[in-house]
Amino acid sequence: MPQVQERIPGRIEDPLSTLPPSLNPPARILMGPGPSDVAPSVLRAMAKPTLGHLDPRFLEVMDQIRDMLQVVFGTRNELTMPMSGTGSAGMETMIVNLVEPGDRVLVGVNGVFGTRMADVARRAGAEVVEVKTEWGKTFTPEAFREAAAGQPCKLLCVVHAETSTGAHQAIPPLKEVAEELGALLCLDCVTSLGGVPVELDAWGVDAAYSGTQKCLSCPPGLAPVSFSARAADFMAKRRHPVQSWYLDLGMIRNYWGGERAYHHTAPINMLYALHEALRLALEEGLEARFLRHRRLSEALVAGLRAMGLSIRVPDEERLPQLTPVAIPEGINDAQGRRFMLEQFGLEIGGGLGPMAGNTWRIGLMGAACSRRNVHLCLSAVGAALGAQGYSIAGDPLQAAADALNG
Amino acid sequence: MPQVQERIPGRIEDPLSTLPPSLNPPARILMGPGPSDVAPSVLRAMAKPTLGHLDPRFLEVMDQIRDMLQVVFGTRNELTMPMSGTGSAGMETMIVNLVEPGDRVLVGVNGVFGTRMADVARRAGAEVVEVKTEWGKTFTPEAFREAAAGQPCKLLCVVHAETSTGAHQAIPPLKEVAEELGALLCLDCVTSLGGVPVELDAWGVDAAYSGTQKCLSCPPGLAPVSFSARAADFMAKRRHPVQSWYLDLGMIRNYWGGERAYHHTAPINMLYALHEALRLALEEGLEARFLRHRRLSEALVAGLRAMGLSIRVPDEERLPQLTPVAIPEGINDAQGRRFMLEQFGLEIGGGLGPMAGNTWRIGLMGAACSRRNVHLCLSAVGAALGAQGYSIAGDPLQAAADALNG
Repeated sequence: MPQVQERIPGRIEDPLSTLPPSLNPPARILMGPGPSDVAPSVLRAMAKPTLGHLDPRFLEVMDQIRDMLQVVFGTRNELTMPMSGTGSAGMETMIVNLVEPGDRVLVGVNGVFGTRMADVARRAGAEVVEVKTEWGKTFTPEAFREAAAGQPCKLLCVVHAETSTGAHQAIPPLKEVAEELGALLCLDCVTSLGGVPVELDAWGVDAAYSGTQKCLSCPPGLAPVSFSARAADFMAKRRHPVQSWYLDLGMIRNYWGGERAYHHTAPINMLYALHEALRLALEEGLEARFLRHRRLSEALVAGLRAMGLSIRVPDEERLPQLTPVAIPEGINDAQGRRFMLEQFGLEIGGGLGPMAGNTWRIGLMGAACSRRNVHLCLSAVGAALGAQGYSIAGDPLQAAADALNG
Repeated sequence: MPQVQERIPGRIEDPLSTLPPSLNPPARILMGPGPSDVAPSVLRAMAKPTLGHLDPRFLEVMDQIRDMLQVVFGTRNELTMPMSGTGSAGMETMIVNLVEPGDRVLVGVNGVFGTRMADVARRAGAEVVEVKTEWGKTFTPEAFREAAAGQPCKLLCVVHAETSTGAHQAIPPLKEVAEELGALLCLDCVTSLGGVPVELDAWGVDAAYSGTQKCLSCPPGLAPVSFSARAADFMAKRRHPVQSWYLDLGMIRNYWGGERAYHHTAPINMLYALHEALRLALEEGLEARFLRHRRLSEALVAGLRAMGLSIRVPDEERLPQLTPVAIPEGINDAQGRRFMLEQFGLEIGGGLGPMAGNTWRIGLMGAACSRRNVHLCLSAVGAALGAQGYSIAGDPLQAAADALNG
C-alpha cells in the first residue's frame, strides 16, 4: 500500500489555525423565489440515519416517494421519480432524454426559465424555435401555432409558473396545438408543483419536471420528473444515446423501477426530506393547499396595493405563490432588500433580466405561505420603503385582513 | 388567476387513506462501498435552517467549503467547488467541460468506474482509447504509453481508488506519460478523498472529482471537483459549448467565484453537511485520518485472513478503505449479506462485474472506520459464514488485535 505522504509544510496554511467554526445559520424567513421555508419535520427527517441505497428499508421509501409524487403531479405515470439534482437538472433530464440531434423543438420564452430551456435544448442538438412574449405575460395557443408555421415539431415546451416573472401559464389550451404538431407537451413545473393545480394526466402532458425548494418546501437538491407512456415510447425508440450518463432515464428507471439496478448512489437524506415534504402536502390536502396559497396571496397583494405599489403581472395570469411588485421610482432595490434581511431576517427576491432593479419578487410558498408571513412581509416592505423616504398612504395590514375576511 | 380544478374523484386513490407514516429508518452500520456512516454532527448540520443561495451568510459558508476542499484535495486550484449532484455528476462535469467532439481520450478501465468514465466520454463525443487491465489490478505508465501508440491525447483519465475492486492506483508515475502525450491528467477520487493522500498539486493533476459519501462521511448528494489553471485554460479555449447546461463550469464558477451570479439554486442543506464533514476531517488532521484508515484496515484484513478468507487485491495495491474479500466456495452471497443486515444491522457490499457473487466489499470509510466496527464486522462475517456451515479455523478478533498492537 502506498505510504502516507508527508505534506509540504507551509504549502497550504495550517488547517487547524484557520478551521471555520461549526455552522450557525440564522433563522431567516424565506419569501423570495425559492428556496422557501422548510417545515421543522422536514429538517428532522433529513437528519435521520443514512441508509444504503439498496437497503430494503430504503427501497420502501423510494416506492412511497414515487406514489406520493404521482398524486401531486396528478398522474399515474409509472416513470415518475426525483432526479438527483436541483430543478435545472430536471429541465436537462427532460430535454436530453427526449431530444435527438436535429429535432425541431418549440420553446415558449417569456422569462429566465424559458430562455434556459431553449439553451439546454440547443446544447442537446435541437433546432429550437423560440416563441416569445413579453416578460410577465403568458402564451396563447395561437402563438405556438404561428411559430410552428405548419411544420411538425418533436416537443412543445412551456413554463407553467415562470419564477422570474410570476406569470401563470394556462396549460389545457396548449394540448390541442401540441397534438396538431405531433409534439409532446412538456412542462416546467418547478414553481407550480404543490402551489397551484398540476394535472399531468387530465391535461395530456407528456413530460414535466419540478424542484423541491419551492411550494413543496423541501431544501433544494432534487428534481421530481414525470413522463407519460408516450414519452417513454419516444425514449425507447431513440437512435442516439442520451448525451448525459448521469441523467439517462433508460438506466435510472431500472433503479427506481422493478430491477433496482445500481446506477448512481441516490442522495439518501435529501430523499428523506422529500418524503416528509410530500407527506405534509398530502396530509394538508392539495385543494386546501392551493386555496391557502390563493387566499394569502390575495391578502398580500391587497396590502401591497394599499401601499400604492403595483403588481407586474395581470391578475388573471398571476401566480399566487410568487408576486412581482414594482419598486417605486427612487427606491434602491439592493438597499431595500438588505434592510429587510438585516432588520427583519426576511429574504425577498430581486428581479431578473428586464425586471432587474425595478421589481421585487415576493414568494408565498409552502410552509412560508402563512398569514403571519403576509403581515411580516407587508411590515418589512413598508419599513424598507419608509427608510428610503417613501411615504405610505393606506393601511396595508388592514387591507390584507379585509381581503382575508372579504 | 385560474380556478382550482376539481380533482376527478376516484382517479387517484385517496391520498390520506394511503399516506405513509413518517420515516423511521433503522440505524445501520454502513460498511459497504458507500454511503458510509455519517457523524452525528454532520446530520445535525444538515438540519440547520435553510438559507437563501445568495444570502451573505451562505456565501461565507461557500467560501469556507472551497477553502477546506482545497486542503483535502492538496491544491491551491481556484476552480475547486462541490457540484450539485452525486459522484457520477462529478465525473460527468470533468468530462463534459474538458472534452470536445473528436478529442482523443485515454481511459484506464479496470473496474466499474473506469468503464463508466469511458461511456461518459463517448457520450461527449470523445474518441476513447480504453486502456485495460484485470479487475483488481492497477496500471503501469507503460500501459498508457503503449495504448496511446505515439499519438497525442487530450486527457489521460484514471480511477485513483476503484470502488468496485478496492485497487489503489499510484498517480505520480502517470504524470510523465501524460506530459509526453500533451494530455491533462484527470482523476476519479470518489473513494480516495479523505481516506488516502490526494495531492493534486504535488502530483501535477489537472482535473479531479470526488463524492461526499465515502471517506468524507457525508451523505451522498455532492461531488467536489477541482481543476488546475491549465485545465481552466483548456475550457476557456473551447470551440463548442459544454453539452450540459447544468454542469457548465463556465457559468457555475461565477456563482462560486467573485461575481456570485445566479446559475442554479445550490443544495443548501447538503452543503451544510459537507461543511461539517470537512471540518471534522481537518480537525482530526489528514495524516491522522489516513493513518487511522491504514491501521484499522490492517486489523480487518488480519482478522479476515485468520478466518481463512483471501483478499482479492495484492497488498501493495490495496485500498485501506475498501477491502474486497473472496466469498468461500459454497457460501451464498446474497444470503450472507442479508444475514448480516438482519442480524447485525450491518451493511457490507456485494461484488460487481466479474466479482458479482464471489466477492464481498467491506468499507472502512470515515466515521465508519473504527476499531469497534472492525470487531463488529469480523463477528458478523464469522456468524454469517457459520450460519451457512463454514467453520472458522483461527481467532479473527485476536488476529485483529495483534495487528493493531504489532
